[in-house]
Amino acid sequence: MSSTRDALSFPDFERAQMDEYLPSKTSIAAAHSRSLPHTTLTYATSMDSQVTLSPGVGSPISGPASKAMTHYLRSKHDAILIGVNTAITDNPSLNCRLKGVGGYGGENSLDGQPRPIIIDPRGRWDFGEENKIFGLVRDGRGKAPWIITADRENEVSWQKRDFLNAVGGKFIFLSPSQAGKFSWDHILRALWEEGIESVMIEGGAGIINGMLAESRRLVDGIIVTIAPVWLGKGGVLVTPDRENQEKEAVRLREVKWIPLGQDVVCCGKVIQ
Amino acid sequence: MSSTRDALSFPDFERAQMDEYLPSKTSIAAAHSRSLPHTTLTYATSMDSQVTLSPGVGSPISGPASKAMTHYLRSKHDAILIGVNTAITDNPSLNCRLKGVGGYGGENSLDGQPRPIIIDPRGRWDFGEENKIFGLVRDGRGKAPWIITADRENEVSWQKRDFLNAVGGKFIFLSPSQAGKFSWDHILRALWEEGIESVMIEGGAGIINGMLAESRRLVDGIIVTIAPVWLGKGGVLVTPDRENQEKEAVRLREVKWIPLGQDVVCCGKVIQ
Repeated sequence: MSSTRDALSFPDFERAQMDEYLPSKTSIAAAHSRSLPHTTLTYATSMDSQVTLSPGVGSPISGPASKAMTHYLRSKHDAILIGVNTAITDNPSLNCRLKGVGGYGGENSLDGQPRPIIIDPRGRWDFGEENKIFGLVRDGRGKAPWIITADRENEVSWQKRDFLNAVGGKFIFLSPSQAGKFSWDHILRALWEEGIESVMIEGGAGIINGMLAESRRLVDGIIVTIAPVWLGKGGVLVTPDRENQEKEAVRLREVKWIPLGQDVVCCGKVIQ
Repeated sequence: MSSTRDALSFPDFERAQMDEYLPSKTSIAAAHSRSLPHTTLTYATSMDSQVTLSPGVGSPISGPASKAMTHYLRSKHDAILIGVNTAITDNPSLNCRLKGVGGYGGENSLDGQPRPIIIDPRGRWDFGEENKIFGLVRDGRGKAPWIITADRENEVSWQKRDFLNAVGGKFIFLSPSQAGKFSWDHILRALWEEGIESVMIEGGAGIINGMLAESRRLVDGIIVTIAPVWLGKGGVLVTPDRENQEKEAVRLREVKWIPLGQDVVCCGKVIQ
C-alpha cells in the first residue's frame, strides 16, 4: 500500500491567496495573549445556503478543487472540530490527505495531521472500530479524536473510554450551561489548555449557526465555499438565529473571493 | 439639471466578463425560433440567501459596484420584470441610469431604457404620479411600465387605466390558472407578442423561486450577486420549492465568478 495513494494536491498559487486568513505567527501570538486558539470557521454550501439536502443526510456539494482546499486548511490547524450530528451522519475521516503530511508522503508519521475534536454534550456518538476515523488511526493516517462531553466521568461507558484511550484519543469533560449546551468560550479554553493553538471549525450547520449568532467575537477567519447549485427548500440551512445575535448582522471585512473549479471560496474576517 | 447628474459607470473590463451570459445576436435568433424572449434571472443576496431583512422591507444588500452592474444589465435588455410585492415595497425606479443611455447622456431620449414590466395578477399595485417610476417618465429618464394583470378589462379602474395610458404605459390582460397564477410560458409569450426580445427578471424572491422551481427551462442566463453578510433567520429567502420542481436541484453550467467590490457575481447558464 503506497502512503500517497489517495493524497490530494493544492497548488501554491491557491495557497498564497488564502494564507492571510489562516493561523500565522502573528495570530498565534494574539492567541497566546488571550489564551484562546486561533479559530477558522469553514463550510461548503449551495447558493441557497444549505449544507445538505436534508437533515441526517451527508451530501457533498462542492467540487474536487474545494475538497483539496479543505485538506490544505486542515494541514494548517492543530485541530478540526465538528458537532456530533456530523459525526453520526457523515462517518467522517477527519484527517488530512494533503500530499506531504504524515501518512500521505510526509517523513514523520503524523506531522501535519490535525486533532479531530467532536462536540458531543450528551454522549450520543456510538463509535467503534468500524468508523472510518479509527481505521485511519490504525493505518497511521490520522490522529485519534478527542470527544468533548457534558457527561461526568463516571457516566461514560468504560468500553467507550478504554477503546478511545487505547487508540490515543480521549474524552474531555466539560460543564454545560443549564440548557445542556457548552459555551464557545469554555470549549475553546479547554482546547487551549490541551495545547491546541489553532482550530478549524467545520460544521455542521448547528455548530456554524451557533458560533455566528452567539460567538462571532471568537472567530478569527471565515472560509466558505459556495457551489453553483440551488438545493431547494427542505435542506439544512446555514443562517444564524437573529434573536440570539450579539449584533444585527454578521459582516466580513478584508473579503477575498477566489474562484475554485466550479465553486467560489469566500475568505474574510468578521467585523466585530 | 444635467442629464448625467446621477449617471453610473460600469467599466469595459467588467462588461466583457459577463457579455456571454447576456442577450446576443445568437441568443436573439434562438428566441425568434421559439417565439419567446431571451431571459436573464438576476438578484442580489446575502451569504444566507436572503434578499431582504424581512418581508415588506427593501434592504439594499450589495455594494455600489454591483449597483452599476445592475444598470449595465438593464441596458442590455428590452424589458425588466418584477413582481407586485417588490413594486409595493421598494417604490423602485426601474430605469437604467448607465451613462450614455437615453436620459443619462445618450443622444436620443429613451435609447437603451428598458421597458418595466410588473406582474400584478390581482391588481394590487396602487400607483400614481407620486411613484418614483412615473417621476422618471415625466423627466424623460425612463419608460412607462406595462402591468400584466388577471383582471378583466372592465375590472380595472378607469382612473388607473387613463393615467397609465396617458404616460405611455399600459395594462396587459392575461388569463391566470385556476390557482390565480400566471404561467411563465404565458407571461413570456405575451411579452414576445408585444415585441420584447429580451427580459431581465429582477425579483423579488417569489418571482425568482417560482421561476427556478417551475420554469428553469425558460431561463437563459443567471446572474446572482452575493454580499459577504449573514442577515440571519427571519428574512426573505431565495430557495426554490422542491415539491414543485421539474428536477432535483437547479445547477449551473459555464459558471463564472466575478469579484466586484466586496461582493461576488455568479454568472451561469441553467443545466436543463
